[in-house]
Amino acid sequence: MGSLLIKNALLNGKKTDILVEGNRFSSLAAPAGTVADTELDAEGMAVLPAFYNTHTHAAMSLLRGYADDLPLEKWLTEYIWPYENRMTRQDIREGSRLAVREMIRTGSVFFSDMYFDIEETLAIVQEYGLRAAIGVTFVEAHAKSQRAEKLDMLRHWVDPTGGLITLTVAPHAIYTVGPELLVQCAETARSLGLKLHIHLSETKKEVDDCVREHGMTPVRYLESLGFLGPDVIAAHVVHVDEEEAAILARRGVTVANCPCSNMKLASGIFPYRLLRDAGCRITLGTDGDSSNNNLDMREEMKFAALLAKVSSGDPEIMPASEALAVATRNGAEAFGIEAGQIREGMLADALLVRLDDERMQPCHNLVSNWVYAAGSSCIDTVLCNGRILMKDRTLLVG
Amino acid sequence: MGSLLIKNALLNGKKTDILVEGNRFSSLAAPAGTVADTELDAEGMAVLPAFYNTHTHAAMSLLRGYADDLPLEKWLTEYIWPYENRMTRQDIREGSRLAVREMIRTGSVFFSDMYFDIEETLAIVQEYGLRAAIGVTFVEAHAKSQRAEKLDMLRHWVDPTGGLITLTVAPHAIYTVGPELLVQCAETARSLGLKLHIHLSETKKEVDDCVREHGMTPVRYLESLGFLGPDVIAAHVVHVDEEEAAILARRGVTVANCPCSNMKLASGIFPYRLLRDAGCRITLGTDGDSSNNNLDMREEMKFAALLAKVSSGDPEIMPASEALAVATRNGAEAFGIEAGQIREGMLADALLVRLDDERMQPCHNLVSNWVYAAGSSCIDTVLCNGRILMKDRTLLVG
Repeated sequence: MGSLLIKNALLNGKKTDILVEGNRFSSLAAPAGTVADTELDAEGMAVLPAFYNTHTHAAMSLLRGYADDLPLEKWLTEYIWPYENRMTRQDIREGSRLAVREMIRTGSVFFSDMYFDIEETLAIVQEYGLRAAIGVTFVEAHAKSQRAEKLDMLRHWVDPTGGLITLTVAPHAIYTVGPELLVQCAETARSLGLKLHIHLSETKKEVDDCVREHGMTPVRYLESLGFLGPDVIAAHVVHVDEEEAAILARRGVTVANCPCSNMKLASGIFPYRLLRDAGCRITLGTDGDSSNNNLDMREEMKFAALLAKVSSGDPEIMPASEALAVATRNGAEAFGIEAGQIREGMLADALLVRLDDERMQPCHNLVSNWVYAAGSSCIDTVLCNGRILMKDRTLLVG
Repeated sequence: MGSLLIKNALLNGKKTDILVEGNRFSSLAAPAGTVADTELDAEGMAVLPAFYNTHTHAAMSLLRGYADDLPLEKWLTEYIWPYENRMTRQDIREGSRLAVREMIRTGSVFFSDMYFDIEETLAIVQEYGLRAAIGVTFVEAHAKSQRAEKLDMLRHWVDPTGGLITLTVAPHAIYTVGPELLVQCAETARSLGLKLHIHLSETKKEVDDCVREHGMTPVRYLESLGFLGPDVIAAHVVHVDEEEAAILARRGVTVANCPCSNMKLASGIFPYRLLRDAGCRITLGTDGDSSNNNLDMREEMKFAALLAKVSSGDPEIMPASEALAVATRNGAEAFGIEAGQIREGMLADALLVRLDDERMQPCHNLVSNWVYAAGSSCIDTVLCNGRILMKDRTLLVG
């Protein structure tokens, strides 16, 4: 991996040359005459942090538009699960490919996934050169042998990319995984230094069922099992009270907000103010293509910000800069990736965004334009770990 | 205006050749060997209805990103109005140009506008060849002479395009226009056969102030003045009760839903089910670029549908096909334009949408992909009144 000079890029309102050496930004103001192995002319483009999509089911891109405008229960049991039962490993590979191509094209350089036959998804991630945290998914329905295989994979898997990919331990949810297995997942993750990825308090039904079965709400239930910690990424977290928000914050749990999915399935409205004020780290996720129905984090940022405003009655909450941080640096931080900001010494992940698109004009406020006005089609170039994945909107990988 | 043959287009699941003669669709299944003045190869593209944006302030594109994350009152009085006071006619022209370019590129062939110095906007509409209903805006603050000029323009203006542009009578809102002028606007519109365009029940404050001043809510107040009728397009209509919904429906009022603007300014949530079930015609609008911050009706459709679902707790409400109708045919119908559907004999407005984009794949359900998954960048070609405004994403007009 050599050096890359990004010339004439707009960064924080100033035109500059940016030098990437290896996989890190080495200078954000390279002096004239700087020479590099590769040069990229970013004239007319702004440099912005790339997206970190913290909750996905990549291969479900194959189910995009297959079953819409349905309640979650019916959607899952009558459409999604029967379809998934017919999916082959080849399907998982092609679904992952479609998703990864969509993600790169819409500016994501990382995704935290939860699905099955993950070898296929791992192969695609490696082929396309982006970052990922791929969940080894546990559900109670698995045979014992399958569970053992999964634990074995978690213990022995080696990242073939030398740093772009990690595995996560992903018990699906409290209603598909019993308490013993939840505890085993947490212990496994902690013994191996891996993150835990789980769906949590997504629907009112999940909460009601949990109270009926365990005598307490989902967050309290996981707390009682010792499951919660700074290594947990909990997706959705729609239905929580003040005390639960405080528990999540105290344990350092990361909460992945998935506004489009929660809106489309009418699961509920993410309590942004409650969780932010409690001190939780909040990240953004698109969920799968089958409940969104895209993986476009630019669009998801706008949904997150606008929904926080209208649901709280406060137009000042989640301003554009905060929405951008949620979709970028917060996600990187949650997974311990030294990226998500354009800063010297940080891993070189970035987007070059075209400013000549009508919706980026005029430019009173670049971040505001990016969050509220742009489309992901304004992205010209995607850089991940110092490597160009897309240029002139053409994928250079895969 | 000659004939146009759109070849190999996907229409309702079948590949077909579509013949446009003059400004109308003359055949949706032209026989092999059909000859036309112009041919367009739509291989790999679907034909979908174009968008009708029923509430805009086009020239405010100049204020995109100028003042965000603020409450409506402060936003208007401290930022928007002072900025507008400095705007020149040339600014209005360039703002209108930017907006019209953005609208065509995102698939709109019509907009219903409300602003000032409308001669500039009219010139741009004519230059770019799309449809528009341009509001002659009335506010109480105008001098008498200015009001007389506006009435004069309404009486004597002749559409230079022979059918693409109309004027509307646009009293800004009940809090900026007194009862006498409201009545005069309604009488003028009715004597000239023009539509009325007004902001209505946008914020809680508007409702509270109206009750305090007039002893009744905004809809009841307009009803008491005899203002409401099938020629009224009321924008926003966020805060209404069941009886008001029934009044609007009984009078045949069209309601322009502007979800992004209402969410961003935290004005409130559009009561989709209430107004639809009452029998109101519901259309879609983006509002101005300064409160959205774009004019992208594809994105707006998704916001409308997802907000209706989560706010009602019903994922089955406003399914994709209904969201598309709201954004297309309902808008055309509200303005008496014989368009909004791809049908023989209808005016030839349409989009050609690329199916090779990752987010349009796979194609279990084209309309679902279009509403929930696509981006407006999937639009290759925009056809308005039989004329190609954009092709290969390049504007052919202006």
